[in-house]
Amino acid sequence: MVKESSQSGLPSLPAGLPKDALHETANALHSAALRLLRQVRTADSQLNLDGPRASALSVLVFGGPLPIGRLAAIEQVSAPAITKTVSALESDGLAERVRFGTDRRIVLVRTTARGRALLERGRAARVRLVAELFAGLSERDRRTLDRAASIIAARIGRRS
Amino acid sequence: MVKESSQSGLPSLPAGLPKDALHETANALHSAALRLLRQVRTADSQLNLDGPRASALSVLVFGGPLPIGRLAAIEQVSAPAITKTVSALESDGLAERVRFGTDRRIVLVRTTARGRALLERGRAARVRLVAELFAGLSERDRRTLDRAASIIAARIGRRS
Repeated sequence: MVKESSQSGLPSLPAGLPKDALHETANALHSAALRLLRQVRTADSQLNLDGPRASALSVLVFGGPLPIGRLAAIEQVSAPAITKTVSALESDGLAERVRFGTDRRIVLVRTTARGRALLERGRAARVRLVAELFAGLSERDRRTLDRAASIIAARIGRRS
Repeated sequence: MVKESSQSGLPSLPAGLPKDALHETANALHSAALRLLRQVRTADSQLNLDGPRASALSVLVFGGPLPIGRLAAIEQVSAPAITKTVSALESDGLAERVRFGTDRRIVLVRTTARGRALLERGRAARVRLVAELFAGLSERDRRTLDRAASIIAARIGRRS
């Protein structure tokens, strides 16, 4: 609750106010994105995939084949947990382990065509729920959402 | 690829074009939200919580105490998986199981003050990453993101 006096502002920042405004926007945007995705993830239940499997499959579809250790790191789960998830995806024919390299010691996990098709169905169902959520939105507000999505995509494209 | 003729359009929709525009906006917004959160979830590694624990803790902090079965449904994981996650949160002092009701058969899972504080640190770190991502954004674009966040929050608030 106690704010520092403005005279003691960090020297590397041009001014206090713009930085605060950006931080508030970041906060609002982060909450909105989180709540939006939480709201529509009910669509994933149609996939008959639990959360960890849906998440790992998504990473593999969008990120391409990965060493299992890298997948564990991205998913922030332990080695036994990722092995269990990958094995479940394999049993369902959604992903497969492939040996790679001359000594065939590198094992990559990749999705199958069936895995990609399933994920695409889930994505389409989530997008339909997003569209339903914004049904009846004014054209002005719809354009604002459109522009915001472009601004976000442009910034992330630059980084990743 | 084969589109139906506009004469056979659904009667409840005013016209084909606005609906398509809304669907495209929903698609762009869904992708942007997903990529934004994926980009900043690296901050969660500072919490020393794996993905499932961070997600369950977040649900408990924002949704309040829940029966463990309800938590499993929200997280879309099996009963053994949620039990493992809750037990891990308990060992770390981040959540606790409490008996509830006259016959004390209802068991709710709730966060501890320590769990809430940890999650809040994680959220703050993610918001900082979002702010960094948008550093140098024009005031016009920042306002667009702000308005978009408000539009999303208003729609979700109406539903949940």
